[in-house]
Formats: sequence, C-alpha cells, structure tokens
Amino acid sequence: MADAGIAQTPKTPYYAVIFTSVRTPVDEGYAETAERMLELAAQQPGYLGVESTREGAVGITVSYWQDLPSIKAWKAVAEHTLAQRLGRERWYRAYKTRICRVEDDYAFTRPA
Amino acid sequence: MADAGIAQTPKTPYYAVIFTSVRTPVDEGYAETAERMLELAAQQPGYLGVESTREGAVGITVSYWQDLPSIKAWKAVAEHTLAQRLGRERWYRAYKTRICRVEDDYAFTRPA
Repeated sequence: MADAGIAQTPKTPYYAVIFTSVRTPVDEGYAETAERMLELAAQQPGYLGVESTREGAVGITVSYWQDLPSIKAWKAVAEHTLAQRLGRERWYRAYKTRICRVEDDYAFTRPA
Repeated sequence: MADAGIAQTPKTPYYAVIFTSVRTPVDEGYAETAERMLELAAQQPGYLGVESTREGAVGITVSYWQDLPSIKAWKAVAEHTLAQRLGRERWYRAYKTRICRVEDDYAFTRPA
C-alpha cells in the first residue's frame, strides 16, 4: 500500500490528539508499554486510527477520534493512566498534548 | 532545553496543519527543499511553530498557525506551490494534510 502509515479517517469533522514528546535515555519498559498503548487505544470506542514517528529523542504520535468524549474516556482508562504516570517518571523529558478538531483534509496517492 | 523539538505555541485556540507523508526513494532536491520550506514557513504571517519527525518512509510534520487565513495564504505562496508539485511528482508516494483547530493543550516538563 502506497499510503501505509497514513491513518484512514472518515469525512471531516473528526478529532485528533497530537502528542509530541522528548524522550529520556531510560528504556525500561518503554517499547512494551508504547506498543500496548497503541493496541489498547485501537480497542476504545470512537477510535479512528493512529500515525506515529520518532526521530532521535523527538516523537510525534497523532491519534484520531470520533468525538471529544471518546478522547476523554481514553485518557481515563486505568492502564493508560498508569502509562501516563510512568511516562512522566521515566520515559519523557517533556511532552505536549494538543486536542484538535479536524476541520478539513485532503490526500494524494501516487498513480501506480 | 528539555523541550527542544516541541513548538512553543500560545494559549488555545490556534490552528494546526498535520502533514503525514510516505516518501519515494527519490532524493533529488528533497532535503534542500524541505529545509527551505521550513525556513519560508517561519517567515509567513500567522506562523507559530513547527514539529517534524521522519522514521523510515513515514514522516509527520505539524505546523501551527494563528488562524485559517494564514494557512490558506501559506498554501498559496508561489515557492511553496512549486514545492507541493515537485512533492507529488518526485518525493511522495502518498500524503494526507489535515487542517485542525487546536481546542485544548497541556504540557509536561521534567523537573530539572
């Protein structure tokens, strides 16, 4: 697929959570937890997809959601709350989370 | 700076453009153009900052803007329009652009 790595989202409007982070050098449990959170997020009501890249210490993960209540519910899932705490204690030097309403989108896919 | 790589944005609301892309193997002119576009974007009215990471073929670049007219004006800047065309012809297999209103944000920075 030419667009593997790009989330397949529905017609606008929908919502995005942009999570931009800077990692510490501490790896303990990070990869397992990050993978588990992607898996767990995908099981939540209102989840639409995710895109994620990391380059050196800086990472950007964008998750897409149907509405704001879905985002709020995911933030409060117990296992996710624990991961957020471990993130602050171990894995992240800094992060910023931005809750967005996607108002318009357009796409390009290369002709085969 | 613990948060180098995270854009310093003002109080919400403001706007974000999430540009998620999948690269071709063609490099011709890519790095220079990408760097020039970051430099040129930063000179536009309403520009607030940018975050960008690429991991393998997949890249996420989020630029932040004061309002929708600023985003529209940046899309239409001649040198940027040319870069968009070259992107479709040479550098990208696929991309998706999402125009978002940032409604809420919060940040964490590790105590020193």
